[in-house]
Amino acid sequence: MYNMTKKNTRRSFIKKLSKVSTATIASGLIAACDNSTSKKKKTNNNKDQIFNWKCVTVWPPNFPILGESVNNLAKELFDLSDGRLNIKVYGGGELVPALESFDAVQLGGVQMMHGAAYYWAGKIPASVFFTATPFGMNTREQNAWLLYGGGNELWKELYNKIGLEPFPCGNTGTQMGGWFNTKINSTKDLKGIKMRIPGLGGKVFTKAGGTSVTVPGGEIYTNLERGVIDATEWIGPYHDYLMGFHKIAKYYYYPGWHEPSATLELVCNKKAYDSLPEDLQVLIKAVSLKYNGIMMSEFEKFNTEYLQKIVQEGKNEILPFPEDVMEALKGYSEDTLNELIANDPFAKKVNESFQAFKKNIKQWSIISTDAMQPYL
Amino acid sequence: MYNMTKKNTRRSFIKKLSKVSTATIASGLIAACDNSTSKKKKTNNNKDQIFNWKCVTVWPPNFPILGESVNNLAKELFDLSDGRLNIKVYGGGELVPALESFDAVQLGGVQMMHGAAYYWAGKIPASVFFTATPFGMNTREQNAWLLYGGGNELWKELYNKIGLEPFPCGNTGTQMGGWFNTKINSTKDLKGIKMRIPGLGGKVFTKAGGTSVTVPGGEIYTNLERGVIDATEWIGPYHDYLMGFHKIAKYYYYPGWHEPSATLELVCNKKAYDSLPEDLQVLIKAVSLKYNGIMMSEFEKFNTEYLQKIVQEGKNEILPFPEDVMEALKGYSEDTLNELIANDPFAKKVNESFQAFKKNIKQWSIISTDAMQPYL
Repeated sequence: MYNMTKKNTRRSFIKKLSKVSTATIASGLIAACDNSTSKKKKTNNNKDQIFNWKCVTVWPPNFPILGESVNNLAKELFDLSDGRLNIKVYGGGELVPALESFDAVQLGGVQMMHGAAYYWAGKIPASVFFTATPFGMNTREQNAWLLYGGGNELWKELYNKIGLEPFPCGNTGTQMGGWFNTKINSTKDLKGIKMRIPGLGGKVFTKAGGTSVTVPGGEIYTNLERGVIDATEWIGPYHDYLMGFHKIAKYYYYPGWHEPSATLELVCNKKAYDSLPEDLQVLIKAVSLKYNGIMMSEFEKFNTEYLQKIVQEGKNEILPFPEDVMEALKGYSEDTLNELIANDPFAKKVNESFQAFKKNIKQWSIISTDAMQPYL
Repeated sequence: MYNMTKKNTRRSFIKKLSKVSTATIASGLIAACDNSTSKKKKTNNNKDQIFNWKCVTVWPPNFPILGESVNNLAKELFDLSDGRLNIKVYGGGELVPALESFDAVQLGGVQMMHGAAYYWAGKIPASVFFTATPFGMNTREQNAWLLYGGGNELWKELYNKIGLEPFPCGNTGTQMGGWFNTKINSTKDLKGIKMRIPGLGGKVFTKAGGTSVTVPGGEIYTNLERGVIDATEWIGPYHDYLMGFHKIAKYYYYPGWHEPSATLELVCNKKAYDSLPEDLQVLIKAVSLKYNGIMMSEFEKFNTEYLQKIVQEGKNEILPFPEDVMEALKGYSEDTLNELIANDPFAKKVNESFQAFKKNIKQWSIISTDAMQPYL
């Protein structure tokens, strides 16, 4: 998964935003800058204040699981705050272009967004660790690192400096390796393959001899059908099936080495968040952690169901990447991460925490969940 | 994990409860029976009402992760309800004996408890599926079944009939196989071994030629040290280390076949729950699901850390059960489950849902998380 919709320019964002609601931006900026109540104790006065917030997302409107969950989350925040947190959710492109959500929240005209930290890797390279890195950690391990292993504190440090307040809020689980029109029997077969695989995965794929191509979500199907690209990754059986890739590509490869798990984020403009009464801050934290867990379960349930659909329809071959391909991709992934951290001291710091935690928890994984799996 | 503290008689429970607070029981019963507000819409009147609840737990007071989390959960419910949900938490034995928590909440003198459904298998055999069954599902799979695969609805159906409202609220992850004073090289070596392993695991162990012994938590260490028992299971490296087993048993076996994951429960007296304004009901649901996710991450973090301690201290051998032992235990587990469902139609119904979901999600697990693991 990556780049759900086309990246537009900042100009188009400002244009669109100003068209939609100039008054809102102004009031949002005022709210964002008004930090005066953040140190106060809870008061009745604060408890009467209604916060009319906007939440943008990087997902298409009502996108299955992802967009739907943000709608549910906003409703839950409204109900549980007795209407004091009144958040209107916008799908990608409805208020601002999906990939300008970050700028919109940073500027403060929009108070909240749901997305994935690695979308902002162009601005903040270290962000990738808070979503997914090739051959990184699985959901269970990644959550343990974020919530109890120091990951979340590093994420807060990184985002707070740029005026944002992040919360882990969802996980896709292990993604699929993608749809291919040709069979991959060895690393040699990656040469010349044009694959829609953005981000770090794309860099790794290019090192392995392939060509990484950027294609907006809405154009992947046609490009794959017409042979403009030979392969594409997306998410997992559920979302991939909805895109129709099983109708046009023969081979469905696993596992999704580029995203062994992918954490999603709920991000607030920090000044807006700080200006909330403390109970509303606690509420946002609690509800985002609820969705952090249940979205993963929803992914697992629907991926299970749609994998069966694909199997039952019998038109595709579902194949593991050959071992030499996996080992080669793993090596190139290490190189790619090393390049990333060489140029960014904060990414280096996060990588140290991430890799140390990964090394330690692996010992536990091996004798617990992994040891049990073959017998289940 | 199982039977954290000694089971006392119902007589002792009533005696103790009446000693502590007869007035409370009476008011609790009145609250529990007053269902008149349950159908009403939210009103200001309701929003002013303060609910002074008691929450009993099956864990010793402030028990690491488990008891601590219930304390945190109660504080969070207080803060997020602006003091309307005022829940006092009692460790096992503080208000009622741990294993009479169920009766206490069913009677209604206590409105809430935290524990694990399989503790009540003597009364309701089907309850085991909502905590752990030998060779059942791992945490990721179990959560998908409970939250999106129909498990939770069956749990509600089972508990609602007996006046309780259940919520999944925590998971221990895969437990360890236990501490042994003798080496297990094959199924033959299980013969004659006296192991502290209660519940379904104990029945399976007995079928495999061993002897299952019930020992209260506080007496396990001494019994193992003195050779009264040859082996014991408990939870995982963190809690096992705190019990000191690594000092007296040479061999630490994995994996915990008897509990590939163990879901914890937050249970309300149904009438008490129904009498809450709707927003407080939603709040309890949301916060229990938050803890359902984060407790698992806390277990993973501390088990990782304490496994390393045990390894670094170098006094134990950490060994996998031989394959023939695992296969034998798996066979006996199937027999044990079949006996359970033969005598209980509801257990049969739950088992059908559980096994169907398990079979389907296994296909997805194999090509996603499990396929990725060897490369992480």
